[in-house]
Amino acid sequence: MLGMNQSQQLQQQLELISECARKKLGQGKVADYIPALARVDNHRFGIAVCDLNGRVYKTGDADISFSIQSISKLFTLIQAMQIYGDDLWQGLGREPSGQRFNSLVQLESENGVPRNPFINAGALLVCDRLESRCSAPNYQLLEMLKSISGNPHLRVDKAVARSEMEHGSRNAAMAYLMKAFGNFPNPVEKVLESYTHHCAIEMSCVDLVRAALPLANRGKSLSGEQILTPKRTKRVNAMLATCGLYNEAGEFAFKVGLPGKSGVGGGILAVFPGYYSICVWSPELNVAGNSLAGMYALEKLSEQLHFSIY
Amino acid sequence: MLGMNQSQQLQQQLELISECARKKLGQGKVADYIPALARVDNHRFGIAVCDLNGRVYKTGDADISFSIQSISKLFTLIQAMQIYGDDLWQGLGREPSGQRFNSLVQLESENGVPRNPFINAGALLVCDRLESRCSAPNYQLLEMLKSISGNPHLRVDKAVARSEMEHGSRNAAMAYLMKAFGNFPNPVEKVLESYTHHCAIEMSCVDLVRAALPLANRGKSLSGEQILTPKRTKRVNAMLATCGLYNEAGEFAFKVGLPGKSGVGGGILAVFPGYYSICVWSPELNVAGNSLAGMYALEKLSEQLHFSIY
Amino acid sequence: MLGMNQSQQLQQQLELISECARKKLGQGKVADYIPALARVDNHRFGIAVCDLNGRVYKTGDADISFSIQSISKLFTLIQAMQIYGDDLWQGLGREPSGQRFNSLVQLESENGVPRNPFINAGALLVCDRLESRCSAPNYQLLEMLKSISGNPHLRVDKAVARSEMEHGSRNAAMAYLMKAFGNFPNPVEKVLESYTHHCAIEMSCVDLVRAALPLANRGKSLSGEQILTPKRTKRVNAMLATCGLYNEAGEFAFKVGLPGKSGVGGGILAVFPGYYSICVWSPELNVAGNSLAGMYALEKLSEQLHFSIY
Amino acid sequence: MLGMNQSQQLQQQLELISECARKKLGQGKVADYIPALARVDNHRFGIAVCDLNGRVYKTGDADISFSIQSISKLFTLIQAMQIYGDDLWQGLGREPSGQRFNSLVQLESENGVPRNPFINAGALLVCDRLESRCSAPNYQLLEMLKSISGNPHLRVDKAVARSEMEHGSRNAAMAYLMKAFGNFPNPVEKVLESYTHHCAIEMSCVDLVRAALPLANRGKSLSGEQILTPKRTKRVNAMLATCGLYNEAGEFAFKVGLPGKSGVGGGILAVFPGYYSICVWSPELNVAGNSLAGMYALEKLSEQLHFSIY
Repeated sequence: MLGMNQSQQLQQQLELISECARKKLGQGKVADYIPALARVDNHRFGIAVCDLNGRVYKTGDADISFSIQSISKLFTLIQAMQIYGDDLWQGLGREPSGQRFNSLVQLESENGVPRNPFINAGALLVCDRLESRCSAPNYQLLEMLKSISGNPHLRVDKAVARSEMEHGSRNAAMAYLMKAFGNFPNPVEKVLESYTHHCAIEMSCVDLVRAALPLANRGKSLSGEQILTPKRTKRVNAMLATCGLYNEAGEFAFKVGLPGKSGVGGGILAVFPGYYSICVWSPELNVAGNSLAGMYALEKLSEQLHFSIY
Repeated sequence: MLGMNQSQQLQQQLELISECARKKLGQGKVADYIPALARVDNHRFGIAVCDLNGRVYKTGDADISFSIQSISKLFTLIQAMQIYGDDLWQGLGREPSGQRFNSLVQLESENGVPRNPFINAGALLVCDRLESRCSAPNYQLLEMLKSISGNPHLRVDKAVARSEMEHGSRNAAMAYLMKAFGNFPNPVEKVLESYTHHCAIEMSCVDLVRAALPLANRGKSLSGEQILTPKRTKRVNAMLATCGLYNEAGEFAFKVGLPGKSGVGGGILAVFPGYYSICVWSPELNVAGNSLAGMYALEKLSEQLHFSIY
Repeated sequence: MLGMNQSQQLQQQLELISECARKKLGQGKVADYIPALARVDNHRFGIAVCDLNGRVYKTGDADISFSIQSISKLFTLIQAMQIYGDDLWQGLGREPSGQRFNSLVQLESENGVPRNPFINAGALLVCDRLESRCSAPNYQLLEMLKSISGNPHLRVDKAVARSEMEHGSRNAAMAYLMKAFGNFPNPVEKVLESYTHHCAIEMSCVDLVRAALPLANRGKSLSGEQILTPKRTKRVNAMLATCGLYNEAGEFAFKVGLPGKSGVGGGILAVFPGYYSICVWSPELNVAGNSLAGMYALEKLSEQLHFSIY
Repeated sequence: MLGMNQSQQLQQQLELISECARKKLGQGKVADYIPALARVDNHRFGIAVCDLNGRVYKTGDADISFSIQSISKLFTLIQAMQIYGDDLWQGLGREPSGQRFNSLVQLESENGVPRNPFINAGALLVCDRLESRCSAPNYQLLEMLKSISGNPHLRVDKAVARSEMEHGSRNAAMAYLMKAFGNFPNPVEKVLESYTHHCAIEMSCVDLVRAALPLANRGKSLSGEQILTPKRTKRVNAMLATCGLYNEAGEFAFKVGLPGKSGVGGGILAVFPGYYSICVWSPELNVAGNSLAGMYALEKLSEQLHFSIY
């Protein structure tokens, strides 16, 4: 995709940006709502970029695995779109929520229909739908990710999953509220188990850019498999652009200008359709709950290399 | 920009889409909250597309003037960004609201800071800011639009402006609420006057694609003037993509995949950065208050001609 | 308390009001959110009034048992006040909610602290507190009610309890939301079981006026036992007056003028401190979920006999 | 009403309570949202109690005039009930709001119908109704108060009224929002003028207990005039009990147990139907915006003298 010079330039820029971004370390706060997450080394920082040929550019801790947390919501959505097609949107919206990721107020006033698949309520609903059709939903996503990323060693951190399950009362509240509106047929306990298993999957920046490449490549994976149709691929990117960063989605569009999805583990995945999949990781979070150094790095990347859809 | 064949193909597609979209006429409802708007002929339908060289492709009623209404919010924003630069964002957000365009609830809980410049509260605040720095803000926008669109005959429909002023209690409520939070220094009455004058400007699809061309062309107008810097141009497009269609922004991204801004007059303006500015007009609205046939036409356009940023 | 004439007059008024109130039958709608409740004969109507000497005046179906439902919230509150004293108010408010009885929005914005013990969330929290201190909370309330009312035959309708448990997702959502805020230490499942058992207790109007007499008699029961101190008795009455009828509390104060508590089984209990306890029962509900004929009867009673605290 | 001994006892209790309450001075904060109010001497403290014969018991600064502020809402309500009768309740509720006194959120979701006449929106609506029927509404209330209280020297503090008008943006926002819903026919500016004049009336505790005596005396004033029917008098008391102290109404019922109305000037008026009207004044406010020492004094009064309706 890039000639030698462009390719060198990209690598150089990644290193330059990485150097600047590392100066931000110490200004954020590692997620500590579950003990298992708080144990991470807060000075980690990595970036990886994958072009359409599968060539990966990377710096720093791009090969270290971390808890993908909410980035998993993107992949459960893809899996559910594969299984349900357009039927998935019965009982599930695709509008920005304008609220915090775990808010119940909108769910109540909108009859148990979550605004979009990237807020917690929406992701739980997607897991409920998978529960109806998959035999082992808490492992099926892992298998899909192994296959798309080409890394057969991906695993779930069971301590994180267990810890998340124990602190999952708010998610249980959302699930029961949807059930009260008749929009959550499966047992809450079982769905929460899948959901927490998905959040506790461990992947590196390199794994993630490979897994997300289909979103940059009209639905086609590294191995040439058509994961989603081109039309559905565009739609996933559209939802990432409007809803992927919770109540910082507007800010992310304004400053970075790419579809993206963040997780409290400190990872942010972004897509430059037609060109690249990109992943940054740095565990310290800003007040909005997104990786502080990661946001900074993506902003610089977008500016320096003109990575923007707008 | 396009070779003869591509150019012919675009014109043919516009006509084909136009024919299909006209079959939707009769299914929506013309805005009637002010009498002056309700008088429009509800069977109008037009599309115009402008490429970076300024060549305009058009069908149907693309040369008929209509009330631009909320599409004006885009241009007041551009004008305010020219004057204030980044200072404009003091007291003004850029996140999707997740609420109806004229909701007060968020304004109250967020201390009088509107979520973005495209909801009514945000646009009123932008007008307040222009009031502080312009000598005749209710006409200055008209002059800017004449200049960028190259049409010196643009005018304000004073009957619409007056009628809107008389039915503007809800906007007054928002303005006073912002004033109560110290975020609206100018007299409410005066700002409302500018605001209603902006909404009552009349332009055709052809006028609008010319006026919006800078957004597709890294900030440069047809006459070569740099209206906004490339960076700010991208940011305006980012905000249009996340907040431009009120609480149908997600749906618009999902189905059309372009930054856009709609008005209750039935116009929808869209931008395909690097390629085209696009405008459809059809006065009948869907339940979300956006042009019904217009939404359909843009969806088809996006599908058939691969107009999408995602 | 009343001389012969007054006593006759009260009985006559009850019969007169009863006759008029029966004409309202057919205008309301029996609660049908659980099948077990929908089976009740919708033409039932009864009133009972108990004076401080324990003399009971009654008409119609005042001896027929019905599902007390939310009226139980009054008695769980009394039981919890006996056990916890003023410590009960840690994590529990005593303000009108201004919302529907099962709303979650306030619970979310107020950090899992329910507004008062008479909305569902508050009653669940009271049950959580009882769970911490009672060995068999789902039967202990029944024993208290047998004792105060003097009727050893009171029972729980297990079919109603089971049915309510099965349709209890919204209550589960509230309980988990409080748990997420650290304000609900016990297992949700166990507390819901007590709660549904309390709601499914069956009592007649006569049972209920006897059980509630302490509220009219400075805390003293028929058998002379001091159930609550006079000060706490006044406080319970104060809470009934401001919060007892959910979002019809204002209307009830306006029209009836007595502290009261209603249930979806069609019962309404009212207290005239220093004089009487009063209970009406009629299963058809008005749009606010309170007994339609019961509200009418209490309004007439208040007017004709000057039963009002205001 | 009271024999010599009872009468002496009441006077003694007032002095005792006054002494204790004065120890609370220094713990609250004088209202300072308008400069004119902030100038008051914060160490003032007075109580007055009026029995049905018009005998007034008083201590401290009970004869010093202060700004009655929101206590005026009670008297505008009475005046509007005199003029409109039951028609007043078209477009006006009588339920506790569960929100702060100046909240707009409920007004928006409930179509411009204020919850009750004691929150700002409701009082503005009452003033709108008076505007439709009175020739000089901003002075008519003053005349009524002079007449009922028997003090012809009552006056409006014009500096306070003017200052309040200048800081009245939030009230203007509410009025315009009601107008947007078609529930506020008169010009906002004019109604705000009456409203601010009412709030700026100056009265002493002694004036206020005389003016409020009809509420304790089945609608009859000191001079024997029937201000309201007994039935409407009860209804006003019912609304005071459920809605009179904004979002501290439940707390006031719980601790004091009387219908009441407070103002940010530090006054609290209370009614013991059938016995007394009571007024305390102390300018320092608690966090809920009610007189800190005043709340304390009323709580003690209720406890010591068994002043409670519950």
